[in-house]
Amino acid sequence: MSNIETAFKSPSERERLIEALIAIVGEDFVLSSEDMRQKHSMDTLPENKICSLAIYPSSTSEVQAILKVARDFRCPVWPFSRGNNWGYGTKNALHENAIILILERMNRIIEVNEKLAYAVVEPGVSQKQLNDYLKKNKLKLWMDCTDSTPNGSVLGNSVERGYGYTPYGDHFAHLCGLEVVLPNGDILKTGGEHSNAKTWNTFKWGSGPFIDGLFSQSNLGIVVKAGVWLMPEPEDFQLFSFEINDSKNLPAAIDALRELSLDGIIQCHTHMVNSFQMMSLLDSYPYEKRGDNHYLSETTLSEIRSQFHLPEWSLIGGLYGSKKIAKIRKKSLKNKLGPLGTLEFFDENKINFVRRFAKFYENSSRNQLLFFLASLVKSVISPKPIKLIKLLPEIFDILKGIPNESILASAYFKSKTPPPAQELNPAQDGCGIMWLAPTLPALGSEAETILNIVKPIYQKHSFEFSGCFTLINPRTFFLLLGIFFDPSSNDEKKRAITLYQDLLFNLKEAGFYQYRLGLPSMENFLSHSPEHANFLLNLKASLDPENILAPGRYAKLTKELSK
Amino acid sequence: MSNIETAFKSPSERERLIEALIAIVGEDFVLSSEDMRQKHSMDTLPENKICSLAIYPSSTSEVQAILKVARDFRCPVWPFSRGNNWGYGTKNALHENAIILILERMNRIIEVNEKLAYAVVEPGVSQKQLNDYLKKNKLKLWMDCTDSTPNGSVLGNSVERGYGYTPYGDHFAHLCGLEVVLPNGDILKTGGEHSNAKTWNTFKWGSGPFIDGLFSQSNLGIVVKAGVWLMPEPEDFQLFSFEINDSKNLPAAIDALRELSLDGIIQCHTHMVNSFQMMSLLDSYPYEKRGDNHYLSETTLSEIRSQFHLPEWSLIGGLYGSKKIAKIRKKSLKNKLGPLGTLEFFDENKINFVRRFAKFYENSSRNQLLFFLASLVKSVISPKPIKLIKLLPEIFDILKGIPNESILASAYFKSKTPPPAQELNPAQDGCGIMWLAPTLPALGSEAETILNIVKPIYQKHSFEFSGCFTLINPRTFFLLLGIFFDPSSNDEKKRAITLYQDLLFNLKEAGFYQYRLGLPSMENFLSHSPEHANFLLNLKASLDPENILAPGRYAKLTKELSK
Repeated sequence: MSNIETAFKSPSERERLIEALIAIVGEDFVLSSEDMRQKHSMDTLPENKICSLAIYPSSTSEVQAILKVARDFRCPVWPFSRGNNWGYGTKNALHENAIILILERMNRIIEVNEKLAYAVVEPGVSQKQLNDYLKKNKLKLWMDCTDSTPNGSVLGNSVERGYGYTPYGDHFAHLCGLEVVLPNGDILKTGGEHSNAKTWNTFKWGSGPFIDGLFSQSNLGIVVKAGVWLMPEPEDFQLFSFEINDSKNLPAAIDALRELSLDGIIQCHTHMVNSFQMMSLLDSYPYEKRGDNHYLSETTLSEIRSQFHLPEWSLIGGLYGSKKIAKIRKKSLKNKLGPLGTLEFFDENKINFVRRFAKFYENSSRNQLLFFLASLVKSVISPKPIKLIKLLPEIFDILKGIPNESILASAYFKSKTPPPAQELNPAQDGCGIMWLAPTLPALGSEAETILNIVKPIYQKHSFEFSGCFTLINPRTFFLLLGIFFDPSSNDEKKRAITLYQDLLFNLKEAGFYQYRLGLPSMENFLSHSPEHANFLLNLKASLDPENILAPGRYAKLTKELSK
Repeated sequence: MSNIETAFKSPSERERLIEALIAIVGEDFVLSSEDMRQKHSMDTLPENKICSLAIYPSSTSEVQAILKVARDFRCPVWPFSRGNNWGYGTKNALHENAIILILERMNRIIEVNEKLAYAVVEPGVSQKQLNDYLKKNKLKLWMDCTDSTPNGSVLGNSVERGYGYTPYGDHFAHLCGLEVVLPNGDILKTGGEHSNAKTWNTFKWGSGPFIDGLFSQSNLGIVVKAGVWLMPEPEDFQLFSFEINDSKNLPAAIDALRELSLDGIIQCHTHMVNSFQMMSLLDSYPYEKRGDNHYLSETTLSEIRSQFHLPEWSLIGGLYGSKKIAKIRKKSLKNKLGPLGTLEFFDENKINFVRRFAKFYENSSRNQLLFFLASLVKSVISPKPIKLIKLLPEIFDILKGIPNESILASAYFKSKTPPPAQELNPAQDGCGIMWLAPTLPALGSEAETILNIVKPIYQKHSFEFSGCFTLINPRTFFLLLGIFFDPSSNDEKKRAITLYQDLLFNLKEAGFYQYRLGLPSMENFLSHSPEHANFLLNLKASLDPENILAPGRYAKLTKELSK
């Protein structure tokens, strides 16, 4: 990637660039000190690239002006909505000395239409902000959130084609009507003829070629505004959990999930984690138990599973809709999943009981008698550890579109320091985590195939296998592979990278491609599809001839950028 | 458009072109006689353009070779899957002397995957062919069909972003994985890295920019293969009809349909026609009743409505899924729609009774006694005319994805000759029909607004208003406006064009844009969005610098094509 390192010809040239940018946004919003350069480049990945500066525009016209300056100075700009894409690259460019453009000050909720169930927002609007807005204004609409930070951008995740849990969990599919700043500075409203179109935020196809997709997972434009469809508050909501104790049942469960989803019984995006990924949600990594190895032995893992009463695979999902329909759907779930594992349902009442109990149990721990009584109750209602019991109401909220940090905490699994009480920031806090997410057809046999590929590779590189099968549409899962590493160990960092590349290579050879890419996947993007790479290069060259916008992001690099 | 008329420098040049094309597909499949040129240019629109020739390739490599020849001769190529896009342009180009490329010989059903519920087909595969295949092979999958001809192309309608009736009725949304011949002859598989991707036909977003949309409603490539998602055969299916007798209830009904759709009670694409459009389904146009006018008076229309027992608006839709869930959904429909009109449900048994009765009634008409008895039964079960009773089972089938010609027959409304018994072809049979389909937000108030715009324009140009509100997603309808004209009357043809242009102009001014365009709309496409037009021109120039592929289709014309 050295051909796109930005090397300034002289220190004074960088100074002139900074001056030109300050003239646009003011000096408070151009952060170019050594300290700030380091801070903005911190990442959970084993490697990062130090930026030249970070800039925080407050408006579309400022974004346009920044692009113009970048073109004049031939200095690449990497846009981020809020830059919390931990595990995939955070605020990092693929090369040193880029301009990091952060859109978090552009955080207006421009419109919420309750009848037509959509919002129009800017990229700086966070999950927490949108949810708070809906609740505060008593709007009968739910958003879909990810299980990452409440501070994450709604649009950022959507243009990156991320997923949540509810029926509105395919975030890109629920965008409708984009406003984009093109690399040349032009503003484009997608969806056809839209100077005054009434259906800009209700009918995404518009007329003529449908171009929204060009601005997702791409470096072809900066989305500065978009419509987001919201879910009318359902009459009823229930969470269901499903535990597979015998791995042999996994393929049948995958098949059952496909059938239930194709039949419209399951309308959400179920997540099913293996026991190791579940451990990351409950405790910090037990370094002390791995002895002389780089990893926990099967025996140790088995002991931990017993200690926490963890099944091989744990799934959660939600039922949304009328009470009566939920009742019928529950029956279908019981019929299909019941024989394969343990299925349990939680409605608002049951969750409130769990919530109250968990609080009481914790508080009573200082009083022996109360604690003894609470333990007795606990052993009756559930043999689960208290951390798991505490987690459930948090996940319940996420399934209702209310973001929280409960699952994000797992990023601290291998940190030597525990997560702070709130405002988690795995990159700033020096956590080590990489994600890799190949897709597979929703067939039990394919689930077996992919596990047979990835598990030995984890073993080969002395890491514990960590995976989550997520149903992203009735015909497809992704298997989210987590690589947790100790960021203070150079050896683990190195092995994490080789594990990642080994997984990536073998998965591609076998036909399993990712639904989104982290930075370490970009270099070999489209290595198997030269004609597709060529097509995108052609597009990029026509829209961004100077290759100023995020060169190499979901694209081959072609041009040398010198500066 | 004269700047893109293809004028051959000499007759011998055309001869050389024909020879070059015959060398690719053989002489049986290059149709260049005067007779064939006329035949391929026949249309239901008031104006058409005579093509230079029609060519029928049998393979992707032949399509590539044809494009090469076209580039060499600088002669535009207009591709059509099967070319039955009646009311929007049939097989017509925007200019004379184009090469008409018809893909109907490329009609392989390459794969049907029953578990993952998809088919991979070529553009020549017709609706009838795919449905027959599913039925013959006893696959428990339903396709979605349009209410146009069974001979229509599955892919053609999908890349044109057409709609059917079932939950799979948004045809473009249900495409997954395209193979495209680009204007330069390259073959591109969309969806990311797909030389060997296992999820090519299950996960449409792939990785990197999502580009499928570029090949819908466009002139940027020729789709020669695609995955099409199919619906698993539902446990239960019922048709529902809903009649609004008092127009005042229309806005409330539109609002109710939005709410039912947002709540997932309605999952299909309901169609609601006004009484005049309904008449076109039942009888031929009563020229004799319009006296000295160009149109039927309100009194006459009212008489016909009484005669046929037609409500102001007639809606049909389907319920798909389990019997138990259907029961609950029926109740919701009754609650919301019941107070606004007449709601009726038809399951398989009831439809079979209707089917048998209609047959018996017709057959008995030759026997006075039986006919008297049948009439007695008919007056008890329904006051509807027998044609409407006969239509219902046909619509029932369409809602199950089984294509038939029952609704297509309405294209013959103003023909002086009735439709043939089968193999309807409105273009060849000289029918006069144009469609115009603006979208509107799914709000009763917007339905009122759009009717207040279009009705006076119909009146101004002495045509009867013909409209169908179709629910295309929970937040959007289109209003399909029909312009039926007498193709033997030059006056009607002229007025049909001015009506069309007047509607188009006023709808655009008011912010109502079409979901797809007929040829007469192309010239002013993006007139209100210069920056969008510019963006597409840029794309077109980078993919098709010679402007060989369907110049002017969903795009501004820029280059002069001389020959």
